Amino acid sequence: MANTSITSIMDLSNPVFRAYLFYMSILIVKVLFSSLLTARQRFRKRVFISPEDTVLARGAKCIKDDPDVERTRRAHANDLENIPFFFTAAFAYMCTSPGPWLAQTLFLVYAVSRIVYTVVYAVVVMPQPTRAIVWSVGYIINIYMAVQAALYFY
Amino acid sequence: MANTSITSIMDLSNPVFRAYLFYMSILIVKVLFSSLLTARQRFRKRVFISPEDTVLARGAKCIKDDPDVERTRRAHANDLENIPFFFTAAFAYMCTSPGPWLAQTLFLVYAVSRIVYTVVYAVVVMPQPTRAIVWSVGYIINIYMAVQAALYFY
Amino acid sequence: MANTSITSIMDLSNPVFRAYLFYMSILIVKVLFSSLLTARQRFRKRVFISPEDTVLARGAKCIKDDPDVERTRRAHANDLENIPFFFTAAFAYMCTSPGPWLAQTLFLVYAVSRIVYTVVYAVVVMPQPTRAIVWSVGYIINIYMAVQAALYFY
Repeated sequence: MANTSITSIMDLSNPVFRAYLFYMSILIVKVLFSSLLTARQRFRKRVFISPEDTVLARGAKCIKDDPDVERTRRAHANDLENIPFFFTAAFAYMCTSPGPWLAQTLFLVYAVSRIVYTVVYAVVVMPQPTRAIVWSVGYIINIYMAVQAALYFY
Repeated sequence: MANTSITSIMDLSNPVFRAYLFYMSILIVKVLFSSLLTARQRFRKRVFISPEDTVLARGAKCIKDDPDVERTRRAHANDLENIPFFFTAAFAYMCTSPGPWLAQTLFLVYAVSRIVYTVVYAVVVMPQPTRAIVWSVGYIINIYMAVQAALYFY
Repeated sequence: MANTSITSIMDLSNPVFRAYLFYMSILIVKVLFSSLLTARQRFRKRVFISPEDTVLARGAKCIKDDPDVERTRRAHANDLENIPFFFTAAFAYMCTSPGPWLAQTLFLVYAVSRIVYTVVYAVVVMPQPTRAIVWSVGYIINIYMAVQAALYFY
């Protein structure tokens, strides 16, 4: 704590900072890919959300409750409720100078948990409590990092 | 402006940067807690969002418009529309080297306004315009910080 | 790469970092303004989302599917699905020391694409595929920056 400064934490040769930037980038691609999952369902089922969109596919309709579209939307919405807060919680946590192994492992497990979450929710639907458990892993990591940072910077 | 650099702004002994990391962490915990408020309503009323979730509680149904669940979801959605933009607006504002007292006060008032917002919307429902006023406080702080930063870095 | 450090990247005299902070601030104002677009439609049509809100305007009702309100809400939701990930993708991309001209151009084009997106979706409704093309521009920039960063920090 005494000998750490922001320049040593946000150093491009610090493996924790590199891991932060790497897993953040992977998760950004993952979330943006979730938009395409929904778009794919819309074109497959010809179900769009705005009246002007129905010109995009022959025979398309404007329907708001198609179950396949809604499923990918819910998976995407869950990303939006969680992943941006990982980016900021991990940043604040990184500023507490955590042990490098622990920090990198938390970032890795979080990224894997969110990718698996999308798979079991919207690609290969798995029976519960699979999704609840996978969600909890990421949730607990976020809470842990944010609480550590709140205590440190109090 | 002349004598400030990013290393003095993002210095772990700079009280403004510490306040930024502290209130950000508090707000992350608050938003993640909002997920639990919704989950609690779902289990209490046995109303779930995906068909496979109905195994999680005896007698559960898949219903999309339960008023208690929708209320906590709306409070949570309002967090997602505002709080991530506080994190980034406050960061950009901090880079303009604002007066320390003003910056720390804005961060504190913002955090309090968002906690009170959740309480008056989803815990103890208060008559309007209470919620509108509480929302405005955080909204104006966000706009103020973002406009200050846009003018500074233009 | 060899001679770049975070202090030279996040230097307040580095035009790329200044552009990052400037366009981020502009986009924050833009997203917050989208909240007002929805509020304006609610007051114009006297259609609110929570029962206690109906005291805010004479003759107001609590309706969930007004087409004008839903249109501004969808434009706002699309912002929330994309713009926070621009902030983080652009940050990670900036840490790869990209060419200054390219980086600043990507930030500018992204900001313009998102402002135009809101206009053609929720202010002056344009026939498709206008909105789809405008959306794609921002989407491709986000993916490009995140993939560049993931490859760099792997």
